[in-house]
Amino acid sequence: MNLEKYLEANKNLIDSSLDEFLPGAQETPAVIHDAMRYSVFAGGKRLRPILVLASAQAVGGDPNKVLPAACALEMVHTYSLIHDDLPSMDNDDYRRGKLTSHKVYGEAMAILAGDALLTLAFEVLVDHTKGIDPLKVNLAVVELARAAGSMGMVGGQVADILSEGKRITGKDLEYIHRHKTAALFGAALRMGAILSHAEQWEIDSLSNYALHLGLAFQIVDDVLDVTGEAHRLGKEPGGDIKNMKATYPSLYSIEESRARVSEEIEQALGSISSLGPEADPLRKIVNYVGTRDY
Amino acid sequence: MNLEKYLEANKNLIDSSLDEFLPGAQETPAVIHDAMRYSVFAGGKRLRPILVLASAQAVGGDPNKVLPAACALEMVHTYSLIHDDLPSMDNDDYRRGKLTSHKVYGEAMAILAGDALLTLAFEVLVDHTKGIDPLKVNLAVVELARAAGSMGMVGGQVADILSEGKRITGKDLEYIHRHKTAALFGAALRMGAILSHAEQWEIDSLSNYALHLGLAFQIVDDVLDVTGEAHRLGKEPGGDIKNMKATYPSLYSIEESRARVSEEIEQALGSISSLGPEADPLRKIVNYVGTRDY
Repeated sequence: MNLEKYLEANKNLIDSSLDEFLPGAQETPAVIHDAMRYSVFAGGKRLRPILVLASAQAVGGDPNKVLPAACALEMVHTYSLIHDDLPSMDNDDYRRGKLTSHKVYGEAMAILAGDALLTLAFEVLVDHTKGIDPLKVNLAVVELARAAGSMGMVGGQVADILSEGKRITGKDLEYIHRHKTAALFGAALRMGAILSHAEQWEIDSLSNYALHLGLAFQIVDDVLDVTGEAHRLGKEPGGDIKNMKATYPSLYSIEESRARVSEEIEQALGSISSLGPEADPLRKIVNYVGTRDY
Repeated sequence: MNLEKYLEANKNLIDSSLDEFLPGAQETPAVIHDAMRYSVFAGGKRLRPILVLASAQAVGGDPNKVLPAACALEMVHTYSLIHDDLPSMDNDDYRRGKLTSHKVYGEAMAILAGDALLTLAFEVLVDHTKGIDPLKVNLAVVELARAAGSMGMVGGQVADILSEGKRITGKDLEYIHRHKTAALFGAALRMGAILSHAEQWEIDSLSNYALHLGLAFQIVDDVLDVTGEAHRLGKEPGGDIKNMKATYPSLYSIEESRARVSEEIEQALGSISSLGPEADPLRKIVNYVGTRDY
């Protein structure tokens, strides 16, 4: 398989499903639906939803059946970006080279657009998932809510905010990365597998894969913020330093950070070594994440 | 039945269930769980969750089985109050006589506490609802998400914000009331009925009841903001006028507002006239809402 083609084909599939599942930009009240669509279609690479599809495929399931779960996850991810960018949080004016939601729609609408995307995620996950045992859909709802909630992604964002400007330990940083980033990767892999009636050992393997992939992804992201160029990042590099954010390279050297990425990649690959060739997209994705130009 | 005792007993039941379903205030990160509990236990009357229990009872179901749905609804209601009070929205310092979330925890934590409560609502609704057909649980998730989302409560809040300081029509005001307030009342009655395996005509009757009850409730609330006293409201009256909010008495006289409340009450009662004595709590609640001291 050619990974670039795989990613592009699935990105297109997800984009058209998101377009279908989101209320039209003219639905009343138009401004909120416009704001929701603005951020959802602001140029994301759709890595998380692609992982939902790849997870279904890895356990012999039908990726098309988990498209609603994939879109739900992307909506949760988008809501988290909108709220993270707010003036009272990271106060970012740009993301992926475009003005952030609150710069375009004002703070109140940005908060509400995030709220509405989070809410719509659960509606889409349940209402559009057809032909799957309703008990499995229930389990997927719980996975998504746990990964996104106060013991998951929101908990990681809280710890991130509390750490700003403070000296933190490697353990604190790992907590932030595991919750703020890896939790949603976990939901991606677990939802894809659960909705495909995977066995428990498969779900466990994919969960471990998700954790290591998520950590690798976040460390690469942190390093790119130091070494990257503005036109490739879609924003000015050095934002983490400016905001006195806890990052991997602020605790370890760039060399150490790169070594840790290699370790996480090895562990991610090892986690799914018992899965067959259906898991090859997952194997290629982890290598791709680990070798982004950083 | 004695309504006061009914409301008190069910409020206590809901309070202890909320306490059980919310993460402990010491769970990491403690500040977010403390903030979530602060707002959930800030003195709400629990009218919406009580309606979930009363709806189950009205169709011959077991109110105890819908306690998770009742608590989920109260979490969604609480999240909406936290976000509504934010500086970029209504900028309120007090609610029910207590400082609002952002005054105690700061704006970032208030936003995240709201986000976490909305997320937890879906987890609790699904993960704690036991012994009910999973397909019914799925339907309840869709009801809650639709009622809370951009075509429901969030849509009403958007229209409310857009109307500030503008001349609006009675039709605009009805849109705001139907979405900002009545939608969640609708979810309360519909979830209680659906999870109790109600027949479609019962669900429809209870939906109509919810709409009229919700409108009556909101008009009473608007009138109280004009005629009420600070120590009973838990905040200064006149806040709607100060914020140039669209309210019923800003378009109609107090007399006309009271007449409309009476009409809505009649219609709410008429909507459930085919239900038996099991619906008596719903009948008493609508009279109680309509005769609050206003």
